[in-house]
Amino acid sequence: MNDTICAIATAPGSGGVALIRVSGPEAIAISNRVFSPKNKEKDLLTLPARRLCLGSVESEEERIDEALVSLFRAPHSYTGEDTVEIACHGSLYIQQQILKLLMEKGCRMALAGEFTQRAFLNGKMDLSQAEAVAELIASTSAGMHRLALNQMRGGFGKELGKLREQLLEFASLIELELDFEEEDVEFADRAHLKQFASDIAGLVRKLADSFSLGNAIKNGIPVAILGETNAGKSTLLNQLLGEERAIVSDLHGTTRDVIEDTVNLSNITFRFIDTAGIRETTDVLENLGIERAFEKLQQASILLWVMDLTGSDARTEALYRVIAPRLEGKKTLLVFNKSDLLSATELEAKRPLLPEATAERLYISAKREEDLLLLKRRLVEVAAPAAISSGDVVVSNIRHYEALIHAHAALLRLMEGLEQNISGDFLSQDIRECIHHLGEITGHISNKEILTHIFSRFCIGK
Amino acid sequence: MNDTICAIATAPGSGGVALIRVSGPEAIAISNRVFSPKNKEKDLLTLPARRLCLGSVESEEERIDEALVSLFRAPHSYTGEDTVEIACHGSLYIQQQILKLLMEKGCRMALAGEFTQRAFLNGKMDLSQAEAVAELIASTSAGMHRLALNQMRGGFGKELGKLREQLLEFASLIELELDFEEEDVEFADRAHLKQFASDIAGLVRKLADSFSLGNAIKNGIPVAILGETNAGKSTLLNQLLGEERAIVSDLHGTTRDVIEDTVNLSNITFRFIDTAGIRETTDVLENLGIERAFEKLQQASILLWVMDLTGSDARTEALYRVIAPRLEGKKTLLVFNKSDLLSATELEAKRPLLPEATAERLYISAKREEDLLLLKRRLVEVAAPAAISSGDVVVSNIRHYEALIHAHAALLRLMEGLEQNISGDFLSQDIRECIHHLGEITGHISNKEILTHIFSRFCIGK
Repeated sequence: MNDTICAIATAPGSGGVALIRVSGPEAIAISNRVFSPKNKEKDLLTLPARRLCLGSVESEEERIDEALVSLFRAPHSYTGEDTVEIACHGSLYIQQQILKLLMEKGCRMALAGEFTQRAFLNGKMDLSQAEAVAELIASTSAGMHRLALNQMRGGFGKELGKLREQLLEFASLIELELDFEEEDVEFADRAHLKQFASDIAGLVRKLADSFSLGNAIKNGIPVAILGETNAGKSTLLNQLLGEERAIVSDLHGTTRDVIEDTVNLSNITFRFIDTAGIRETTDVLENLGIERAFEKLQQASILLWVMDLTGSDARTEALYRVIAPRLEGKKTLLVFNKSDLLSATELEAKRPLLPEATAERLYISAKREEDLLLLKRRLVEVAAPAAISSGDVVVSNIRHYEALIHAHAALLRLMEGLEQNISGDFLSQDIRECIHHLGEITGHISNKEILTHIFSRFCIGK
Repeated sequence: MNDTICAIATAPGSGGVALIRVSGPEAIAISNRVFSPKNKEKDLLTLPARRLCLGSVESEEERIDEALVSLFRAPHSYTGEDTVEIACHGSLYIQQQILKLLMEKGCRMALAGEFTQRAFLNGKMDLSQAEAVAELIASTSAGMHRLALNQMRGGFGKELGKLREQLLEFASLIELELDFEEEDVEFADRAHLKQFASDIAGLVRKLADSFSLGNAIKNGIPVAILGETNAGKSTLLNQLLGEERAIVSDLHGTTRDVIEDTVNLSNITFRFIDTAGIRETTDVLENLGIERAFEKLQQASILLWVMDLTGSDARTEALYRVIAPRLEGKKTLLVFNKSDLLSATELEAKRPLLPEATAERLYISAKREEDLLLLKRRLVEVAAPAAISSGDVVVSNIRHYEALIHAHAALLRLMEGLEQNISGDFLSQDIRECIHHLGEITGHISNKEILTHIFSRFCIGK
């Protein structure tokens, strides 16, 4: 933290403009060695903060580029340190030359996420906010973006921080009692503590519960397409994925095989789960493999059950009867496919199929553009309750989720202990454990390894 | 030019930060509709120019991002129009949403190069400077970068502009004489005009001559590798290209087959010319194909003549005698290869080979790292005179080169006419033609088609 770091903050590659960021105690002094203001009366060292200054970046030998430079003085910067931003022409050559020059003059190349890591270490944001910065940059849908933005703007970090303070107070009061053990005093009001533990357990539970929604938004709302092989599932899937097939970044270490078939429809990310197992084993109902396929099915929150309108009704009914019990609690769309091959009369005759099914029915042809639009619209509408609004607190980070689960377990033990009037040192232990896990989320408790892991997932320059 | 345009100015893709640029009469008003300063006392409409203002970009429905915004008021901006720059988080999603929002509020998406085109149309730069902006962004070597920077900072545009003014003055004086034809007056001093035409012809010639250097810098210094097939040319070429093989952008419509083998050594771009023809036809000296190969050889400014030290001396001498006459005027390096296969004594015995050759000799093994380093260093040193220094005026644009050639031809006709005391209307015609061609370079004379062609080669956002 005593050195000064630099990096290109804009996307890699050449463009009209690139932004180079310098941060650290020597940021302004080093930049001053490579930058000459056009207006000779100006001086970078005394330039007011947040004013753009036109000039040129120069080595001893030559002028590298014209640039606009601005300063941010500690602690009023992103990192909390002195920071300089150099907006230059976006050729790769210029970017490299300016970085090289800055390094010659005393900068070190920043590691991935190092600017944000410094912001965290300087208390400009808590750890959950810092993590949200990386997620904001990686977001590719409205939901992911809103999740990250809510979290970045404080989210539950602040709230958890406050609860943690209160828990700390309780812990110290109880620990004070232990010092006066023989006098049998009670500094910590047990009724108050009981109520507080119950309240916080409720909140922590609620946050942990929001993870399945947060995860669906982040990784895509899981949709399974089921049905016989000849029902046209592949065609339908390909049509749905179409040209909008998402380009999945591996910034978060996502493995391609899990979320390969991802598509954004109306800015909601859908993730199509491979149910090949079911596709192939529905014939042999006793097949052992089917159970594994059904496990996968459990991950889906939306099911598209695709049937062939030109197929045998009896077979469709039989298959549905096997699958139906598994569909409970899932949002299901019954998709009757290949309507283009039927006359209006034939189509009408098929409508009474599956009389016991209450799920919504769609009669489509996967080959007709307007039918696909209809299906996409219905998918978006069915998924809509999963959308969150600005300000909603939703956990989408598995690290946070696990810490919340541990904190919740400690709180349950605390509540049980309070019921049973157990001794203060046990209560204190549970409170301390809960404090620890809440602190993990905000970074009050952190170890170097975890920090390194978190920030290494950032892009360079942020 | 009456509408307001917007685009992402930074490299495409996601990064820590992205910069969105808005320019046009409504730039500030439109930005004000989507941006709320964090400090509620601030107002975008009255924000002083070149001050960074922190706040958030918001639609009616939701907050999209936190951003730093700065204003540039006409004419003190890149385009000469009111301009707003929005620095936001660099996720693709955020970039798209902000652009979408700006377009909803009245912006139009900028075409490639449209910001620079507006700068040109508003008189912020001449056409040759505008073209240099695109070349600066595309530059991948020190030479290309310096060429572009020199040209962008005024280069020969200003000088040509001044000459053009003087030519215009002469033309109008001569044309004035025509109005008074019967009185036989001479407003334009012929001796003065003669001197001026000669001076300017010299300058134009010098500029046109610099094109072969400028072109070499821009497209790479052409190097031909010659020699027998078994002399190790392919190995040598592959070693020279190595991992540093340049990734050639097709920004300038360069065809891959011509400059496929390009490499940057010490920031100088070398372009290896395919002389397969010579390689295969040296055996059959009468072969017709050899002439075509020699034509290609003419493009090279440096030749590497590779010989096999383990081969027959007589054969080497014979081949050299055929090729030598073609090497005149080229910088040649005689590369005696496969020295690793010879003992020191054997190597010594080979030194008297080609007694008549005056070119520099290198005894190497293409497989030895230190020999390759030596060869690369010699290539860089031989090419060094081709390097230009800051401030040198070098033409690298073929459009400029052609205009200079045409202007030069008109000047020669003018000088001849002056010698022969021909009538003023012919003189005026030649002067006008010269003015026209000089004006093409700076954009005083331009047609829509040429402008569209020039600016379409830019990236979006510049």
